[in-house]
Amino acid sequence: MAQLSHPKIQDGWFREISSEWPGQAMMLKVNRILHTEQSLYQDVLVFESETYGNVLVLDSVIQCTERDEFSYQEMIAHLPLASHPNPRRVLVVGGGDGGVVREVLRHKSVEHVTLCDIDEAVIRVSKQYLPHMSALLTDPRVTVHIGDGLEFLAQSTSTYDAIITDCSDPDGPAASLFQQPYFELLRDRLNPGGHISIQAESMWLHLHSIRELLNTARPFFPVVEYAYSTVPTYPSGQIGFLVASKEPGDDLRTPRRAVPDTRYYNPHIHRAAYVLPEFCRMFLEEGRDIRPHLQKAKRVNHVAQEGTGHTMDGPQLTGSNTNKIGAAFDVDTIINHDRTVLKGRAAPRGSKLPVSL
Amino acid sequence: MAQLSHPKIQDGWFREISSEWPGQAMMLKVNRILHTEQSLYQDVLVFESETYGNVLVLDSVIQCTERDEFSYQEMIAHLPLASHPNPRRVLVVGGGDGGVVREVLRHKSVEHVTLCDIDEAVIRVSKQYLPHMSALLTDPRVTVHIGDGLEFLAQSTSTYDAIITDCSDPDGPAASLFQQPYFELLRDRLNPGGHISIQAESMWLHLHSIRELLNTARPFFPVVEYAYSTVPTYPSGQIGFLVASKEPGDDLRTPRRAVPDTRYYNPHIHRAAYVLPEFCRMFLEEGRDIRPHLQKAKRVNHVAQEGTGHTMDGPQLTGSNTNKIGAAFDVDTIINHDRTVLKGRAAPRGSKLPVSL
Repeated sequence: MAQLSHPKIQDGWFREISSEWPGQAMMLKVNRILHTEQSLYQDVLVFESETYGNVLVLDSVIQCTERDEFSYQEMIAHLPLASHPNPRRVLVVGGGDGGVVREVLRHKSVEHVTLCDIDEAVIRVSKQYLPHMSALLTDPRVTVHIGDGLEFLAQSTSTYDAIITDCSDPDGPAASLFQQPYFELLRDRLNPGGHISIQAESMWLHLHSIRELLNTARPFFPVVEYAYSTVPTYPSGQIGFLVASKEPGDDLRTPRRAVPDTRYYNPHIHRAAYVLPEFCRMFLEEGRDIRPHLQKAKRVNHVAQEGTGHTMDGPQLTGSNTNKIGAAFDVDTIINHDRTVLKGRAAPRGSKLPVSL
Repeated sequence: MAQLSHPKIQDGWFREISSEWPGQAMMLKVNRILHTEQSLYQDVLVFESETYGNVLVLDSVIQCTERDEFSYQEMIAHLPLASHPNPRRVLVVGGGDGGVVREVLRHKSVEHVTLCDIDEAVIRVSKQYLPHMSALLTDPRVTVHIGDGLEFLAQSTSTYDAIITDCSDPDGPAASLFQQPYFELLRDRLNPGGHISIQAESMWLHLHSIRELLNTARPFFPVVEYAYSTVPTYPSGQIGFLVASKEPGDDLRTPRRAVPDTRYYNPHIHRAAYVLPEFCRMFLEEGRDIRPHLQKAKRVNHVAQEGTGHTMDGPQLTGSNTNKIGAAFDVDTIINHDRTVLKGRAAPRGSKLPVSL
């Protein structure tokens, strides 16, 4: 039988090159390719890596590895659940690998979990190659539904105490899960006091996108927060989560109970996950961008999905021939993007923003 | 003039392939190579990247990029300084790029900084290509000394309120800076109540090494802690710091004052940096390894630098043909390494450790 091959695997290395994080890429050494498939929705690849166990890749983006997946699954699940008074019914949108369902079931109060993933291929290959993530998909407390998350919510009348959206990046089949109609459905299908969490990108790569997502959620949820975790095989080694509550004044940052048998999560990490580095806090809370700006760098490949409330930013900086510090962005573009942000800092087109050493 | 070339740059990408983190590598897209040199101590490379500004590489390992260097420099400097009552005289060992010196000088109490780097080439190329990091090396409060950090401390009678060791990984010219004689000198050259910090590897990659380093420091310092920061271009996107105090009962985790003009550091991040994910906390505080273990994986390339108190571990796991969970380590090796760690969990050679889902 001929060996499997995949265009992103060359010379024995998988290369996660993507226009979403231009100029940087993670490589993982491949022992052998286990599965390749073009599903109805995306390119599905599973390979056995040299040092990270089996790896699931969708549309050439690493979704999880056996070695570090626990960090992501635990944080996206326990941040909304451990801060909820009594989560009993939970919906997971996406997450066909089963990792989030596994974590949800650590909460004794949980009576039923519904998983809704659009792509049966993800569930099928995860059952085959990621059994310690997918094993609990057959638990009697779990119902698996194959379908679009937005349609599922629109057509169902079921309600939930928590809805966790474990989706891929917003430029693939998950695009609708970052938009306003989805947040409206989330609110409507949540029980009083319900919590949500959503995969919300890396603060090192997508700061504008994160703010857009938070702003998209705010009309529907009185409490909206951003938290993060470290994950070595995600771009820039870090991933964030939008966590929100339907209950005004709800304290999402404080866990109400312990979660057993976790490897990343603990009550102190729960609180610390909401403590943001100054550049991120300043941008999200005060609208000021204090990141170093590379002279003559300009925004390229700016992907503004009009009307979606989601915008790619950050990595589309390009370098310059010198390394003096200057304006990294087209200032006018930023002002148009959100006029309040640069209020008081607006500068003539082409001028440099002051940067202190 | 012929274009510069470097063996780690191929097809326009720099590849950070290293036996210290086998099976994974960061790639950065290269606009052009600015400098290559074999100095007295190491291979020195500077390139202009597509999206991270100028990048300094020593012995093929990324040391800093203009886009994300602030996270590392701020945290290794402000964790020991902001928690010190009144730091006036500071020594920086390594750090020839000047980034740490820049951060040290944000503290108004600091009267004098000595920088001791073994390699003049690092200082020279940083002045040329990383001016916003190196600019303050010419500040009147700064003395630059070219030489070995350990020898400098041994021969000098000067004392300091804080000593920051900003060094490369322990398998190059910085090896002596992770060993017991160095910690003894650090203690002797510190004023009463003095603080130290040292670059201390990634918890995702080098957990055994981190524990060894903490144990190496403990005979000389009554308070020894581990903190961490996120840095996209460091292996696994994360880097840790050993922070220690000469003062018994000293509270390193609480800042005593604000630091102006920071981009990553703030008082809340100061506290949160010491909050460790459960797998790291459990290993360092309770000696239990709760990371997922990949079946049939075995330790390879185990670099035990006998007598140095420093041991590489973690990434040297290899995958398997299946993905059932089993014992990742040669259990006997771990037991020999530190008999207390697996007390009560010791298993016959080749047996599997129990792992819960």
